[in-house]
Amino acid sequence: MMTKILIINGANLNLLGKREKEIYGEQSFEQYLQELRKKYSSIEIDYFQSNIEGELVEALQTSRAEGIILNAGGYTHTSVVIRDAISSIKPKVLEVHISNIASRESFRHTSLITPVCKGCIMGFGLTSYELALNYFLLLKES
Amino acid sequence: MMTKILIINGANLNLLGKREKEIYGEQSFEQYLQELRKKYSSIEIDYFQSNIEGELVEALQTSRAEGIILNAGGYTHTSVVIRDAISSIKPKVLEVHISNIASRESFRHTSLITPVCKGCIMGFGLTSYELALNYFLLLKES
Amino acid sequence: MMTKILIINGANLNLLGKREKEIYGEQSFEQYLQELRKKYSSIEIDYFQSNIEGELVEALQTSRAEGIILNAGGYTHTSVVIRDAISSIKPKVLEVHISNIASRESFRHTSLITPVCKGCIMGFGLTSYELALNYFLLLKES
Amino acid sequence: MMTKILIINGANLNLLGKREKEIYGEQSFEQYLQELRKKYSSIEIDYFQSNIEGELVEALQTSRAEGIILNAGGYTHTSVVIRDAISSIKPKVLEVHISNIASRESFRHTSLITPVCKGCIMGFGLTSYELALNYFLLLKES
Amino acid sequence: MMTKILIINGANLNLLGKREKEIYGEQSFEQYLQELRKKYSSIEIDYFQSNIEGELVEALQTSRAEGIILNAGGYTHTSVVIRDAISSIKPKVLEVHISNIASRESFRHTSLITPVCKGCIMGFGLTSYELALNYFLLLKES
Amino acid sequence: MMTKILIINGANLNLLGKREKEIYGEQSFEQYLQELRKKYSSIEIDYFQSNIEGELVEALQTSRAEGIILNAGGYTHTSVVIRDAISSIKPKVLEVHISNIASRESFRHTSLITPVCKGCIMGFGLTSYELALNYFLLLKES
Amino acid sequence: MMTKILIINGANLNLLGKREKEIYGEQSFEQYLQELRKKYSSIEIDYFQSNIEGELVEALQTSRAEGIILNAGGYTHTSVVIRDAISSIKPKVLEVHISNIASRESFRHTSLITPVCKGCIMGFGLTSYELALNYFLLLKES
Amino acid sequence: MMTKILIINGANLNLLGKREKEIYGEQSFEQYLQELRKKYSSIEIDYFQSNIEGELVEALQTSRAEGIILNAGGYTHTSVVIRDAISSIKPKVLEVHISNIASRESFRHTSLITPVCKGCIMGFGLTSYELALNYFLLLKES
Amino acid sequence: MMTKILIINGANLNLLGKREKEIYGEQSFEQYLQELRKKYSSIEIDYFQSNIEGELVEALQTSRAEGIILNAGGYTHTSVVIRDAISSIKPKVLEVHISNIASRESFRHTSLITPVCKGCIMGFGLTSYELALNYFLLLKES
Amino acid sequence: MMTKILIINGANLNLLGKREKEIYGEQSFEQYLQELRKKYSSIEIDYFQSNIEGELVEALQTSRAEGIILNAGGYTHTSVVIRDAISSIKPKVLEVHISNIASRESFRHTSLITPVCKGCIMGFGLTSYELALNYFLLLKES
Amino acid sequence: MMTKILIINGANLNLLGKREKEIYGEQSFEQYLQELRKKYSSIEIDYFQSNIEGELVEALQTSRAEGIILNAGGYTHTSVVIRDAISSIKPKVLEVHISNIASRESFRHTSLITPVCKGCIMGFGLTSYELALNYFLLLKES
Amino acid sequence: MMTKILIINGANLNLLGKREKEIYGEQSFEQYLQELRKKYSSIEIDYFQSNIEGELVEALQTSRAEGIILNAGGYTHTSVVIRDAISSIKPKVLEVHISNIASRESFRHTSLITPVCKGCIMGFGLTSYELALNYFLLLKES
Repeated sequence: MMTKILIINGANLNLLGKREKEIYGEQSFEQYLQELRKKYSSIEIDYFQSNIEGELVEALQTSRAEGIILNAGGYTHTSVVIRDAISSIKPKVLEVHISNIASRESFRHTSLITPVCKGCIMGFGLTSYELALNYFLLLKES
Repeated sequence: MMTKILIINGANLNLLGKREKEIYGEQSFEQYLQELRKKYSSIEIDYFQSNIEGELVEALQTSRAEGIILNAGGYTHTSVVIRDAISSIKPKVLEVHISNIASRESFRHTSLITPVCKGCIMGFGLTSYELALNYFLLLKES
Repeated sequence: MMTKILIINGANLNLLGKREKEIYGEQSFEQYLQELRKKYSSIEIDYFQSNIEGELVEALQTSRAEGIILNAGGYTHTSVVIRDAISSIKPKVLEVHISNIASRESFRHTSLITPVCKGCIMGFGLTSYELALNYFLLLKES
Repeated sequence: MMTKILIINGANLNLLGKREKEIYGEQSFEQYLQELRKKYSSIEIDYFQSNIEGELVEALQTSRAEGIILNAGGYTHTSVVIRDAISSIKPKVLEVHISNIASRESFRHTSLITPVCKGCIMGFGLTSYELALNYFLLLKES
Repeated sequence: MMTKILIINGANLNLLGKREKEIYGEQSFEQYLQELRKKYSSIEIDYFQSNIEGELVEALQTSRAEGIILNAGGYTHTSVVIRDAISSIKPKVLEVHISNIASRESFRHTSLITPVCKGCIMGFGLTSYELALNYFLLLKES
Repeated sequence: MMTKILIINGANLNLLGKREKEIYGEQSFEQYLQELRKKYSSIEIDYFQSNIEGELVEALQTSRAEGIILNAGGYTHTSVVIRDAISSIKPKVLEVHISNIASRESFRHTSLITPVCKGCIMGFGLTSYELALNYFLLLKES
Repeated sequence: MMTKILIINGANLNLLGKREKEIYGEQSFEQYLQELRKKYSSIEIDYFQSNIEGELVEALQTSRAEGIILNAGGYTHTSVVIRDAISSIKPKVLEVHISNIASRESFRHTSLITPVCKGCIMGFGLTSYELALNYFLLLKES
Repeated sequence: MMTKILIINGANLNLLGKREKEIYGEQSFEQYLQELRKKYSSIEIDYFQSNIEGELVEALQTSRAEGIILNAGGYTHTSVVIRDAISSIKPKVLEVHISNIASRESFRHTSLITPVCKGCIMGFGLTSYELALNYFLLLKES
Repeated sequence: MMTKILIINGANLNLLGKREKEIYGEQSFEQYLQELRKKYSSIEIDYFQSNIEGELVEALQTSRAEGIILNAGGYTHTSVVIRDAISSIKPKVLEVHISNIASRESFRHTSLITPVCKGCIMGFGLTSYELALNYFLLLKES
Repeated sequence: MMTKILIINGANLNLLGKREKEIYGEQSFEQYLQELRKKYSSIEIDYFQSNIEGELVEALQTSRAEGIILNAGGYTHTSVVIRDAISSIKPKVLEVHISNIASRESFRHTSLITPVCKGCIMGFGLTSYELALNYFLLLKES
Repeated sequence: MMTKILIINGANLNLLGKREKEIYGEQSFEQYLQELRKKYSSIEIDYFQSNIEGELVEALQTSRAEGIILNAGGYTHTSVVIRDAISSIKPKVLEVHISNIASRESFRHTSLITPVCKGCIMGFGLTSYELALNYFLLLKES
Repeated sequence: MMTKILIINGANLNLLGKREKEIYGEQSFEQYLQELRKKYSSIEIDYFQSNIEGELVEALQTSRAEGIILNAGGYTHTSVVIRDAISSIKPKVLEVHISNIASRESFRHTSLITPVCKGCIMGFGLTSYELALNYFLLLKES
């Protein structure tokens, strides 16, 4: 049976490839996702995006994936409820960020989510997601 | 006419009895609610749960109950808008918590909601809700 | 072609004119909006209100207005995602507040939103919105 | 055998019903205690009051009650030794407060005692004590 | 009789149009004032500028205007005495700023003056002053 | 009838004139009291000293004096219960200190008591007490 | 030769008796000064008031009085230069305040001046000045 | 003549050997004291324990010992008055703690007493007291 | 020509596989390195370990690798000089950690190094290093 | 043409050589200035001193010197307006201090002015001014 | 077999007896060590001193002693890597200090090392080391 | 005999002229040193650079120079041990910085070293070192 991984994107990540292209590039996340699925055909990659905190909580609560890759966007720094959802579910959750949040505004230096995630990968552009996928592949190998 | 009380549960409280059973027990809140309704048959107990902050605001705004028992879950520590909703409505709002939040992570030690609630009951497991109901009963008596 | 301005109201502002009338007056925002539209007939004034943070984000993302007047209510002090939405869109966003938030509780003294808005107008009651409209008119003139 | 509960009142609570009647009412705690004892005749309710921190420590240390209801008054916010006494004894200790301390001066927002108590009930006037009694009754039932 | 408004400019605002023209433009405040007076001929607009904190206090104390528009410049963030002067006089005082001070150095994020002013308008360049004037006009209308 | 004033001295003030004479002089407070009584024979001056916080609370609670002069010693900086006692009684309480506590260790810079006292006199050696007495005399005159 | 005392009043104290009469009374400081001079005819009482920080510094630097009574008004909380002037001169400086600044806004709880003054008297209305005068009289006696 | 050492134990240390035996062992302090006296027969070891802060102050004030070994228990972190008592007496005071307070709750990391003691020994169980005794013995030798 | 990557390990990482095996496993970093080199034979992997901060600085300064994978160990939280070395060299530096430092002691929550690194990978055990290697491989591909 | 340098001294520096001679020496700044002018005859050295913050602002605004040496005295730590004046003028401003302000009271450890000055020289007594002059000479040479 | 104890001295402790003799005495640590070895001949006392943080780490890592007495000098307050080394080794580590660090500069009040040491002894001059030795002897006895 | 001055450069200053030339120029410190020695031939200028904190400590301890010019680089902000070394030696130590550290990242605003140095010169590029040399020359003259 194929490994099932869920990628969850939080607020404003639906704008990737549409706004601030000079920073985030011309590619929408949907296009990137297609490439990922082609390259990692042995994994079933589900995807969910929402701008609403509580819908992210529900996506975490109801997922049947073996692993979750979560970029909570701006909620990373303010959401106790996403943290609580992560704590109460079984699949490993990996935190990813496109940018290096430690080099941005000071309110972005604290993540409420990291302490309850398996680990964190940040600063590598969209490649952060691919490295997270690789983690799940390596886990299978070992 | 029967006293009408609304219980509002915030984020992740829909998981009670389904996850982390060693902590929260085997009982779902719906099962507990049935017991409460049977035991306190002189009170009409309404119930609302949502993982979405703004829906909790709306439940507070539109309630016609005489009293509200609110466990805002993780929003307790971050939500100015729930606080504002409580301030702007007539029914007395009682804050309850299942666990003793003062003995957990430091970001849970501050509640934005307590100062605008009538009072707070915390640490007694699901019994916190029942004690809150008792308050409304005692209020009727006096 | 008419200038198009979008007014966005955040959480609990749907209660204007219904609750705490001694503070906010007898007028609902809808009534006030009608007056504004009559007085400023050369501008097309759109309106959106939501109690849900993520819906405010979406209203900002999808607006085609030339200017946006935003009163984020309680989310002003806690929402990184609304800030991020403002940063990523083209129209100028003006922050307004009915009350003087600097003279209220200390957690209201910090706005996460102001640094990414064009400017801020606060403390003038509903007139704060009208002054914001005036700004867009003066901008046209110059 | 009757359940034995000890109520401990800390500093200045001997003034109830004698001073600041507009806030705390006309009733002294002794009068209130009589009513409680009449209403809850199945429980043996002991009572101790002192203005001296160390005497409160000793009352906690030497009590043979099954449960203790503690309103430490102003010592709530400053007393490490009362906290230590609670930690080192067997009976469950319930923290109660007449007023909602979260809506008073900021130095009253921190309780050194809550983390080592079973739970906390505050803001319900003298009814806070009665709710605490109810907790012990409900505990017996279950 | 004509409405009388006093504009008070604090330290370094005498440099407008003379220094840092790329930021503040080519126009001196005196030139801008002439335009304002022409455009708003129904209002008598007085003007006072000083680099000395105590002279700003005296301008506030002795003014006979119906409304005061105050840009205290750098004293905004440090002056208790200007705050005290505003508190002790009858005319409404409006705080204005040319730039958006929330997006500048962190010591500019706190204004000692806002809590005692009617309201604040900031970030609109010299137009901030004109919006403040508009407030007084709208006040007359209502 | 003679005006009745109670002087209350807190912890370690029983050592005056016995220890650290180079700082506090050779005179015990009892000797000084005798001089005060002789000089101000129109006032009845009562005196109470204790090293025990709760006994100071009781002295405040039970006093029948028209005015109280309180030097709480080290409890000044830590005692919520003395503050609460002052708040709940009728006589005016004047805070006095022998030394200038603002020029000593930083933990002495905050007094929990000052906000609920009529006023504070500090830094004048034993003369601080005499100035406090003078205040009550001047009050009589006016 | 007569003892010479200088009273220095800082910013906004020229408004005494003219503004906020409900708080500060109907009496101007000049009228009060006349009464003081009449009552304490053995002392030569000089008087200086300024709203300008630097002029207060100069008044301190150039005074030939034996003692100085200083109410720096709002400069109390912000002025390093007045502190430095006090440190560098010979006469004893007494800090006085009309109100109890510890019970007002938090920025008024810190005085930069107290640590370098002889002592501080606050909260007694205009009587604070008279008590300060008394200190100099008692000093003469001893 | 025998060296005279006073051991002072503060709040809750009377529970040693009676409560929380898994942490503190089966031995009461009285039993331990007997062993110490037998082993160090050349020293006269006095002992005082109280749960009342002010009584600890008095024990410090009135002791005629050459050295004092003080475990103030929970008062270590809150008591200015014990600090003041230590500062004003002649015998050297040694602070001891049974546990390593730096590895416990954060409010135990600060001791108000250490800066005025000769030194501090902590973390060695009851042996902390014996090491303190050894210090006085070594002092005699040198 | 082969891609050259340098792995730098800071203080105490020489103990891997030798101490605290229950946490870090039985494998020394040297053994792990051999496996990595075998698996990623297309990359030349250099390795340097030191417990001395300044030697880590020098390893960074003198490296001729195309990419550097840095686990600075405990220096992560305290070293400005390692940060400065990273800022002044050309190769991309990736920060890795074996454990999830956000879930450990609070002083480990701040990294002085992250803001000047390309990105950070943490929490995946030794696999963190492999994911970092993967990043350099993916970079080559694109 | 001669290089023109302006030395500006802030509050209380007019007391040099008159007060606190044990610290600052017997020499007034005017005497020192004469020596400097004699020694550095190739430079035209202007001098301005004021105790008034706003006059220092004006001296900065109106200077036609090529370089300015500024000792703002106590205003160093509190003056946003002097900072703003420095930012808005062309000549390089050098901050100097006679004493080492980092070894004095903690409120002197922060300078609002340093970040906008070319550099800072402090701790060398009056020689700090001479070193600043040397900087301008060395600048000419290079 | 003889008990083996390692004494480790950190930065600047090689200066003992050479510099600041008025504070630390005439004796070098080497001389003191000789005396210790003579007096405690039943213990094998090893000694290591370094000014380099990483060398202290290595001394801790490689020691085969049963107990370690560590005076990390200035590294006490800044070194995470020494803390990590202590955590990862088997021998008990005792922290000692010659002076009472709680009565010195505030940055010396925090020790990063204490929480992972067995205990701490400070303030007794060189005798702190001897008391630590005594602890190991008493441990043997019991 | 020639005056002997030691220049000590800390971490990363060996990169001057090799990296980040756009900021620090093309000149290595060795080249600059040669120029200095030529220009100031009456002084013997020694030089030491290290990236290792403990070696800087040793250079300070063992120097026989009359004066030391110290640029500790990144250790400026973190090193207690360099501070301690400066405190314990006889030669005057002057702190210098090439850049104006007050205008860089906030962690660079605090220097642990300044309070124990004679003075500080910063912001003048390499000329900071020359001004420090000048100080020693002027000291000789006087």
